[in-house]
Amino acid sequence: MVNPALKAIRGSFVDFVDDPFYRPESESVRYLQDGLMVLQDGKILEFDHYAILSDRFSQIPTQTYNGLILPGFIDLHVHYPQTEMIGAYGEQLLEWLNKYVFPTEAKFKDIDYARQIAAFFLDELLRNGTTSAVVMTTIFPNSVDILFEEAQRRNMRLIAGQMMMSRNAPEFLVNEPHKSYQENRELIAKWQGQDRLLYAITPRFAITSTPAELEFAAKLKQEFPELYIHTHLSENPKEIEFTAALFPENKDYLNVYEQFDLVGDRSIFAHCVHLNDSAFERLSLSGAAIAYCPTSNLFLGSGLFKLHQAKSQEFPVKVGLGSDVGAGTSFSQLKSMGEAYKISQLQGESLSAFKAFYLATLGGAKALSLDDKVGSFDCGKEADLVVLDPDATPIQSLRNQASKGDFSLEAIASQLFGMMILGDDRSIKATFIAGELVKC
Amino acid sequence: MVNPALKAIRGSFVDFVDDPFYRPESESVRYLQDGLMVLQDGKILEFDHYAILSDRFSQIPTQTYNGLILPGFIDLHVHYPQTEMIGAYGEQLLEWLNKYVFPTEAKFKDIDYARQIAAFFLDELLRNGTTSAVVMTTIFPNSVDILFEEAQRRNMRLIAGQMMMSRNAPEFLVNEPHKSYQENRELIAKWQGQDRLLYAITPRFAITSTPAELEFAAKLKQEFPELYIHTHLSENPKEIEFTAALFPENKDYLNVYEQFDLVGDRSIFAHCVHLNDSAFERLSLSGAAIAYCPTSNLFLGSGLFKLHQAKSQEFPVKVGLGSDVGAGTSFSQLKSMGEAYKISQLQGESLSAFKAFYLATLGGAKALSLDDKVGSFDCGKEADLVVLDPDATPIQSLRNQASKGDFSLEAIASQLFGMMILGDDRSIKATFIAGELVKC
Repeated sequence: MVNPALKAIRGSFVDFVDDPFYRPESESVRYLQDGLMVLQDGKILEFDHYAILSDRFSQIPTQTYNGLILPGFIDLHVHYPQTEMIGAYGEQLLEWLNKYVFPTEAKFKDIDYARQIAAFFLDELLRNGTTSAVVMTTIFPNSVDILFEEAQRRNMRLIAGQMMMSRNAPEFLVNEPHKSYQENRELIAKWQGQDRLLYAITPRFAITSTPAELEFAAKLKQEFPELYIHTHLSENPKEIEFTAALFPENKDYLNVYEQFDLVGDRSIFAHCVHLNDSAFERLSLSGAAIAYCPTSNLFLGSGLFKLHQAKSQEFPVKVGLGSDVGAGTSFSQLKSMGEAYKISQLQGESLSAFKAFYLATLGGAKALSLDDKVGSFDCGKEADLVVLDPDATPIQSLRNQASKGDFSLEAIASQLFGMMILGDDRSIKATFIAGELVKC
Repeated sequence: MVNPALKAIRGSFVDFVDDPFYRPESESVRYLQDGLMVLQDGKILEFDHYAILSDRFSQIPTQTYNGLILPGFIDLHVHYPQTEMIGAYGEQLLEWLNKYVFPTEAKFKDIDYARQIAAFFLDELLRNGTTSAVVMTTIFPNSVDILFEEAQRRNMRLIAGQMMMSRNAPEFLVNEPHKSYQENRELIAKWQGQDRLLYAITPRFAITSTPAELEFAAKLKQEFPELYIHTHLSENPKEIEFTAALFPENKDYLNVYEQFDLVGDRSIFAHCVHLNDSAFERLSLSGAAIAYCPTSNLFLGSGLFKLHQAKSQEFPVKVGLGSDVGAGTSFSQLKSMGEAYKISQLQGESLSAFKAFYLATLGGAKALSLDDKVGSFDCGKEADLVVLDPDATPIQSLRNQASKGDFSLEAIASQLFGMMILGDDRSIKATFIAGELVKC
């Protein structure tokens, strides 16, 4: 008797069972050349070689894919209000914020505009194979509601929260800290834990928060310890200098957040391009995570993130990848990986394909302490997955000709590497959210 | 009476009448919002506002395009034999050559393989809007013949020559200098000036040439002064160090080429990432050109090219863009421009869209002393052009929404910038070679 609630996906699966920065790649990668994943209620019920499972599940509806099936990508840092202003010319961080970002974010007071962009934004994530994201919004509570509504409609695992800003921004983007605290409380009550949605306390960065506002952020974290902290850290030299001037008593930028108890497990710090050794160590010891945003760091000329230091043996820090649109230049995490490779190369390091894909999948899930729910194909996890086409363009197809029919880990690594260097949205053949096909 | 040899293209045209690095952009760019280009025998017969020409040419067949029509892109440095090995993992220049490049180039002894790749390579250039290219081949004369044959079949303006290598390479890629000299002479006799084809004397780089071979290169240049010199210069620190060890009597890397009279007008030096001030000055004074290869310099971790120094007021050097596939990560010059922007940003400089597109069009033509033939839309020039679609993907379309119906230079600059940051082969709506549509 076939259980009508079951369905299956068959194909070549690649995911991670360990961190390839610390374990041999051959022991970190799980590759099933001909695998079967059985789904029930949006979760992975069974996952193994097809030959092992086929007898038991031969009767259930099964979709077979060519290409490589991976866990859906996790975007650890992205601004949905900046979608429209992607690729804004000619400035570095602080000038870019004033000239382009703040005027654009002001538009999110308009609910209709916010909804149009939220829908576009989420669909663009899905089109690019991103199934989970940690999203910055604006100071307008409506802009948060609308993002959560649209994410809920798509059943995405999404983390967001109201942007907290109380100084050093145009008047139309400044909120009163106590009002912001109250608005956050209402939004938390409405959204935290609804379906797959989670809430992040989101002070934009130290520059735009008064100490009073950071105290309210800390108060929220004390009241709701399960929430995330999501903010920026050490992106750009001028930003760091300005922060030091605003917080002269703190020994460094990270210490501002430390002072307000905002650094720990479930704290996501975007960028961290210019951290000193001590800050890397303190992030490591605290359990906080870095959202590494390669395309953004190059586009704004922020600098070269020291991934090898973040993933050191001595003081390992949790790291995932952020697209950081609109400073980032693509929603595609394949592009994030490609630019990350180039940034490593400029520092005399090499970022392997498996390491890069780890950062975008299980690494991101671990950064969010969500690795019991997403990021790999363990049974019981939510079935967010992406089907990648290594041959999406003529040049990729030519490049892969030599390894056709080769199913070694080396050949798979080469195909994945080809996608991170040459791929784009066309590499995403299908995206599944909790077992449902949402892009094909 | 309509002349049956005439046809026309109508649309929005953008080209350059001067160098925007040295003149105000508003005086360097020529923008015809509604222009008409009349073609005869593959050349531009008339080019002006539609309203001015329409009476005289209302009867000739006219193709109208949306988007922006620009001169076809010029790729100043690319290796056709490396097409298949694009995106090869994990090495910097010298190790990458030994591990990936040399074994791949060995395959070009096989004529059938060479023809398959040559055809693919040229079609890929056209698909990406590149209409002229300066191409490295291999030491095998057949690989040169085949590239020229395929380029001639496509009527492309292509510059190439037999690769000269006589040491520091595997035996199968080493040629005897006098034999190479004779083979070059035969190839020059066969190809130089045939249709739109031009010949380049091509010592790979100082490391793989004995002084004897460089003397033969110099002899060829003396015998055929109209030929190009095409080689590499100062790409990578280890390469520079090795060169210094091989040529201890020369004061720097450039001086090796100077010693053999290989530096002057029509000399193309790829990379020049690590030039000293003196070398920049000597390149400027000699009239030689730099092929700036942004995607390659990042992919191999070679370093950040100092474009602002090459385009200085005091010692201006001719500069164009090279894709440098297979070290480069795309045939698209839009991608070269996007990575060039990021490289400038990392150095605290901004590369405007008009400057970037200048480098890929008229800048490249001037670097080749071919600006009387290609690179802009002056009457009498060869009609190589590309139709760009600024809205090729959903995110680009959204980004451009705000400037729809705005025909100011600022709006055009923004659309072009959007393509260099977000665009790819899909941005190329049509490519024309000498007035004939070859990609649509």
